[in-house]
Amino acid sequence: MDIKNYMNDLGQQARAASRALARAETGVKNTALLNIADAIMAAQETLIVENAKDLAQGKKDGLDAALLDRLELNAERIAGMAEGLRQIAALPDPVGEITDMKYHASGLQIGKMRVPLGVIGIIYESRPNVTADAAGLCLKSGNAAILRGGSEAKHSNLAIAKAINSGLEKAGLPALAVQVIETTDRAAVGELITMPQYVDVIVPRGGKGLIERISAEATVPVIKHLHGVCHVYIDAAADLDMAVDIAFNSKCHRYGVCNAMETLLVDTAVAAEVLPRLQAEYAKENVELRGCSRTRDILSGINAASEADWDEEYLAPILSIRVVDGLDDAIEHLHKHSSGHTEAIITQDYTRSRRFLAEVDSSSVMVNASTRFADGFEYGLGAEIGISTDKIHVRGPVGLEGLTSQKYIVLGDGQVRG
Amino acid sequence: MDIKNYMNDLGQQARAASRALARAETGVKNTALLNIADAIMAAQETLIVENAKDLAQGKKDGLDAALLDRLELNAERIAGMAEGLRQIAALPDPVGEITDMKYHASGLQIGKMRVPLGVIGIIYESRPNVTADAAGLCLKSGNAAILRGGSEAKHSNLAIAKAINSGLEKAGLPALAVQVIETTDRAAVGELITMPQYVDVIVPRGGKGLIERISAEATVPVIKHLHGVCHVYIDAAADLDMAVDIAFNSKCHRYGVCNAMETLLVDTAVAAEVLPRLQAEYAKENVELRGCSRTRDILSGINAASEADWDEEYLAPILSIRVVDGLDDAIEHLHKHSSGHTEAIITQDYTRSRRFLAEVDSSSVMVNASTRFADGFEYGLGAEIGISTDKIHVRGPVGLEGLTSQKYIVLGDGQVRG
Repeated sequence: MDIKNYMNDLGQQARAASRALARAETGVKNTALLNIADAIMAAQETLIVENAKDLAQGKKDGLDAALLDRLELNAERIAGMAEGLRQIAALPDPVGEITDMKYHASGLQIGKMRVPLGVIGIIYESRPNVTADAAGLCLKSGNAAILRGGSEAKHSNLAIAKAINSGLEKAGLPALAVQVIETTDRAAVGELITMPQYVDVIVPRGGKGLIERISAEATVPVIKHLHGVCHVYIDAAADLDMAVDIAFNSKCHRYGVCNAMETLLVDTAVAAEVLPRLQAEYAKENVELRGCSRTRDILSGINAASEADWDEEYLAPILSIRVVDGLDDAIEHLHKHSSGHTEAIITQDYTRSRRFLAEVDSSSVMVNASTRFADGFEYGLGAEIGISTDKIHVRGPVGLEGLTSQKYIVLGDGQVRG
Repeated sequence: MDIKNYMNDLGQQARAASRALARAETGVKNTALLNIADAIMAAQETLIVENAKDLAQGKKDGLDAALLDRLELNAERIAGMAEGLRQIAALPDPVGEITDMKYHASGLQIGKMRVPLGVIGIIYESRPNVTADAAGLCLKSGNAAILRGGSEAKHSNLAIAKAINSGLEKAGLPALAVQVIETTDRAAVGELITMPQYVDVIVPRGGKGLIERISAEATVPVIKHLHGVCHVYIDAAADLDMAVDIAFNSKCHRYGVCNAMETLLVDTAVAAEVLPRLQAEYAKENVELRGCSRTRDILSGINAASEADWDEEYLAPILSIRVVDGLDDAIEHLHKHSSGHTEAIITQDYTRSRRFLAEVDSSSVMVNASTRFADGFEYGLGAEIGISTDKIHVRGPVGLEGLTSQKYIVLGDGQVRG
């Protein structure tokens, strides 16, 4: 198989399909989404059989239990995929929205129209349900998609792709609007991320290593979520009951997620009062605490945080704690160590809350709320394709709108420039 | 001089300065802009002396008359730079704007805040007034700037930079918020476009070659304007007087600009009537016409357009003309040959105007207006740093808003996730 030719064909087909998708009516796109949901439900047995092949191979290859769990499709997960597609069908169509139409001195009426990006390449790892989610989001936003799942989910992804293609065709849309790369050869990814003539944006979903490699090598723009080193800052004017609740929830609600708190910053004015209360709470969940020297002066029996701890995304029941000298010191720490994902201040002080909101340079900045709220569903986006920690194009949870762009439209009556 | 170290220092200084600029109040930024305008006017003599050195060197190096003209600073152009800065000071500040704040089921109030991108690298060629324009736009939008002008304008740019730095300092802002790269070594550009830790976006302004090279090599996101192969399509239902006016204006108002028409598409239904009228108009301005075979059946004495003509940005009194079979054929031509800059349809047909607006995938799509209107001033942006033909982040004329991003802000009363 000549990977270069194969990917070139996929790219050309995607570009052609993207034209049809861009002008598809909302109703037709929604019908396709519902068709795909039905096709996935109808294919349940096949999906489980194909998935079993991947699971068997995974076990043979020695994948760990967590990976095998993410890889598995069962009746509940298959129903979840179909339900996700139905929810996307129910969301408003972002495409074609016209805004800001204003008359200018020339007599021209000028504004913006929201349009699809064109072709979106999505690169992801083990979970096969991403195939349906990503296809659904691209379809609704009028984009063609080229999907590259993990090689460990190969059979599952191809079976899901079949359901997607049949659902598209039944609605009168090109089946090739969603293509799953059939080869597991890594060179295919290399081609995908360097075909700006066919691919308008790449969305990598997976570990930091994957995303760093893709960002470094891509010549196509990348919307990426690198990692989440999220912080809670307990200000001198915090309501300490609230501070304990939020700091506990931000860490312990779920460990393996990008919006979990990894470092707690505490103003020295309240550290001696709030830290022992938090230590007692974290002890119940066996969270390992690693503190700066001032933290360790207050809390006995905890390890010292190393310099590396301040940049660590633990994704585990571990928390680093630093005592800081007020808001400026906290912001300074964030500028050095935050990954730009989500930070929260706990305070009743009006001016410091405003300063935190304005000066902290992260995709989500919160006052008196758990960092765990940073996601597309909580923000009302209906669905998300990821969380962007980039500054360009889209920041924070990325929903349908993040997969679109705006062009200018100009309506005249024969105006020429004098 | 160690270029790597030098650029690293510039990057670090810019990042530090960007923090101060991001939190600078609107009034302070405006004061700095007015200070810089005053400093430029006060430095008029020095600027002319320094510019004379560049002009002398340029003549010695054999620069052509057009380049020397673009390089020249005189009293009028210096006053123009100062006036441009005063106009930027008068524009509304995009930074800090809060939109879409809505209450959600969780009780959280969630919306977006507009924020600077951080550090912007601008790479441009001969015209030294870009130094003041670009600095002004970056400053107003709360961004630090690293500017790399053409080596032929070295003395002029450094003299302008001095005025900028003094204006910033006088307003209490860091002088290093705007830095001009002092070396003319090309390796400096290579460093600038591969320092994502210090530079958030690159805006290249110049010829297609420069921009293609930068896009290919950059690991920092690039907002670019590649080229403008703009089209006017005369529909079967066009008002032909209007069609002649607009097709003439789009081509002949100015030749060397990116929003000039380069290819005219004409529906076969009206070609025989409108093309001879246009030929007579273009003849008055000595515009060379190159036609498809059907065009040449109607117009005698014109050359044949080659395949390459359909992709050519002439920037000259040359026009290629193609007769097409209706709107679908026109759109097909655009999908193949448009550079995604600006296209206009001339029609009185309601449905075809709507289809053209929706289906043509360019940064500006117009009905019954000259392509020459595609620019930031005509669109009411007040100033522009360029026109983006990209789809990601910003499309079309890029003003202050294009140099910003939006982060999510979340206001709570102690919410935790259940």
